[in-house]
Amino acid sequence: MSIREDAANMKSVAPYLAASDIEQRNKALELIMDAIKDNSDKIFTANNIDMGEAMKGGVPSAVLKRLKFDEGKLKSVLDGIDMLISLPDPVGRVTLHRQLDEGLELTRVSCPIGVIGVIFEARPDAMIQIATLCIKSGNCAILKGGKETTQTNRVIFSLIKEAVGKVGLPEDCLYQATSHSEIDELLDCYGDVDLIIPRGSNAFVQYIMNNTRIPVMGHADGICHIYVDKAADFDMAIKVITDAKIQYTAACNAVETLLVHKDIAGEFLPVLYKAMNEAGVTLKGDFATRGLIPVEAVGEEGYVEYLDLIASVKVVDSLHAAVEHINRFGSHHTDSIITEDTEAADAFQQLVDSAGVYHNCSTRFADGFRYGFGAEVGISTSKLHARGPVGLEGLVTYKYRLKGQGHIVDDYATGVKSFHFKDI
Amino acid sequence: MSIREDAANMKSVAPYLAASDIEQRNKALELIMDAIKDNSDKIFTANNIDMGEAMKGGVPSAVLKRLKFDEGKLKSVLDGIDMLISLPDPVGRVTLHRQLDEGLELTRVSCPIGVIGVIFEARPDAMIQIATLCIKSGNCAILKGGKETTQTNRVIFSLIKEAVGKVGLPEDCLYQATSHSEIDELLDCYGDVDLIIPRGSNAFVQYIMNNTRIPVMGHADGICHIYVDKAADFDMAIKVITDAKIQYTAACNAVETLLVHKDIAGEFLPVLYKAMNEAGVTLKGDFATRGLIPVEAVGEEGYVEYLDLIASVKVVDSLHAAVEHINRFGSHHTDSIITEDTEAADAFQQLVDSAGVYHNCSTRFADGFRYGFGAEVGISTSKLHARGPVGLEGLVTYKYRLKGQGHIVDDYATGVKSFHFKDI
Repeated sequence: MSIREDAANMKSVAPYLAASDIEQRNKALELIMDAIKDNSDKIFTANNIDMGEAMKGGVPSAVLKRLKFDEGKLKSVLDGIDMLISLPDPVGRVTLHRQLDEGLELTRVSCPIGVIGVIFEARPDAMIQIATLCIKSGNCAILKGGKETTQTNRVIFSLIKEAVGKVGLPEDCLYQATSHSEIDELLDCYGDVDLIIPRGSNAFVQYIMNNTRIPVMGHADGICHIYVDKAADFDMAIKVITDAKIQYTAACNAVETLLVHKDIAGEFLPVLYKAMNEAGVTLKGDFATRGLIPVEAVGEEGYVEYLDLIASVKVVDSLHAAVEHINRFGSHHTDSIITEDTEAADAFQQLVDSAGVYHNCSTRFADGFRYGFGAEVGISTSKLHARGPVGLEGLVTYKYRLKGQGHIVDDYATGVKSFHFKDI
Repeated sequence: MSIREDAANMKSVAPYLAASDIEQRNKALELIMDAIKDNSDKIFTANNIDMGEAMKGGVPSAVLKRLKFDEGKLKSVLDGIDMLISLPDPVGRVTLHRQLDEGLELTRVSCPIGVIGVIFEARPDAMIQIATLCIKSGNCAILKGGKETTQTNRVIFSLIKEAVGKVGLPEDCLYQATSHSEIDELLDCYGDVDLIIPRGSNAFVQYIMNNTRIPVMGHADGICHIYVDKAADFDMAIKVITDAKIQYTAACNAVETLLVHKDIAGEFLPVLYKAMNEAGVTLKGDFATRGLIPVEAVGEEGYVEYLDLIASVKVVDSLHAAVEHINRFGSHHTDSIITEDTEAADAFQQLVDSAGVYHNCSTRFADGFRYGFGAEVGISTSKLHARGPVGLEGLVTYKYRLKGQGHIVDDYATGVKSFHFKDI
């Protein structure tokens, strides 16, 4: 079967998965936990094959690190599923209940989005997290993991699919795409697939966004800022910047641009320079910065996402100038202010137009697990629907149910009846 | 100034409008009410000029009816603003408040989307409704009304803009586009404009969707269904179908396709045929329908949106077949079941994948005013963000605020600290 046919079939199946009860969906998650635990050797063996192939192919060490599935990662995915089971059902929540008139009652109820396509990097734990999030939220899913995880994902997916079938959920609610050509087929499934979530490089996400009519949720850029205010605690600033830059440089929530208030730049920049040198981070600066520390100029490409041990530095005249820079040149992902001045912090958190606006902490906290969502299917920098780390709540929509007794609009248009709104 | 420059300016202004307090925004709405009341003669005079031009130009009578601004419409927009003022502030609502660990606190707060472009039909009341919804929700707006309303909208817009300035909100938060060429300029403002809401014909909305990278909210089609179940009350079915078809044929929530259960088709279709004949509605039918009543076949184009005194009729084998037809060929707008069987109603409302799923009432109720939202900026058939009639809630997004005391991720990655999620 092609993805096109599978997606069309899923569209028919989706309303029935959406109607399944939470006990059944949680039971599926429990069986998945058991199956993964009981078959860990089989998963590790498959993962060794993938690792061997990847090493032969000269895959970079950062990718190898993500690809490796070991006892540590096993434990953390099992903990994640456990947490997911404990979370309340995101489906069927009544978010509005209103009598419009005698006998005419409106209810707004949360429901799954329907059929979701997720394309993700070569990480076996991602396959488990994404599949379980989709099951818990009652969504059908087409899953395409990075090709380096082929063997591991095949084992994991078959365990997940078996568990879903055992509890009586429609087995067709999950589909694993395995070849790269299937991505373009998936992008063509407008009308059957409701949402695509791409994870990966900027170029890859841009490609997806430009080549489908299906709504896309995610982010291309992650240009995160830390603004060191004039009332900053320098030690804290250095500690937070170091974490945000080096704890995981390839992450979208790593800091890329440091904005420093002019009143403290002369004192702070040399301290920053020394600390970054020790941490192996290269700084690039604007004109004012270069007058204070010996760094290269920010490149012609401007304040970009380096995903490397490099950061841009810019001196700003005021908090408002920092806000203007972030809103203009940032990617609306996550930005942090370091200050002891709570008024400044409030203004920053109010005015910065990003999914995450932080005070005195590292941008690296932008993550579904760290927010207590159990896991995430991705991080959204769009302002519509879900913003920031996307967990269960971002995987549901809602519908309006209206119950009448033969009510017609003409009676209200002609004044025979009138509305009496009353929230119940 | 071009729209491009205005939009760029609005992007800078938007965070400050978002930070304004609700008293100020409500005060602006009060001043707008007063200004419209006090200057109604000026508005009526301008409207007379527009009406004269439109009549000279041979504009269809349905459009003329929408274009006309009279005492009745004046009263209803004033009532609408009054209701809007009474609604709670959609901005600044805390929808999640969680301690992640000692001293590390996450808050999710609702905030305006930012800069919204709305392109709408030639209705002076639409200009007022949309502008006031945007002000109440703290959004900057670029407004483009139908060209037939040029004179009326010019007067109304200047009154609104003056009121906004009087209360100290940034005057640049509203812009009126007046020429058709500005629509393409607006579509080009990706990065500055956060959302476009087009209202109008299917072809127009499709054009907007296909010609911008800015997210678009709205609907192109409105193919609404009424399913007459085997347990339907025939009188009620006729009454509801008549209302849904003829009360306002040009509306997106008018019914276009009638699905009839096979067990009652022989008895019901002749009754329907007679009633529709009397109401001036032409029916078209599938093969089974044509065996029971003397109607033409449904055209080759299938079950389409007529926006006219025409409806398609199809006989279905079961409720599930009705659901399958609606999910496959509908536009996920609004669909209704007529039945005395509550189990059948529940199943229908659960399984139909539309923004509105109704029981024993007319599809014409799908409307922001009728839902008690005060007004609407449009109706969304998308599953993402807002679905159904879009009022204040659909005009806000949210951001995550995180407050720490120098917290870094490395402490959690290395096990020095661990998360203790606690909702506050």
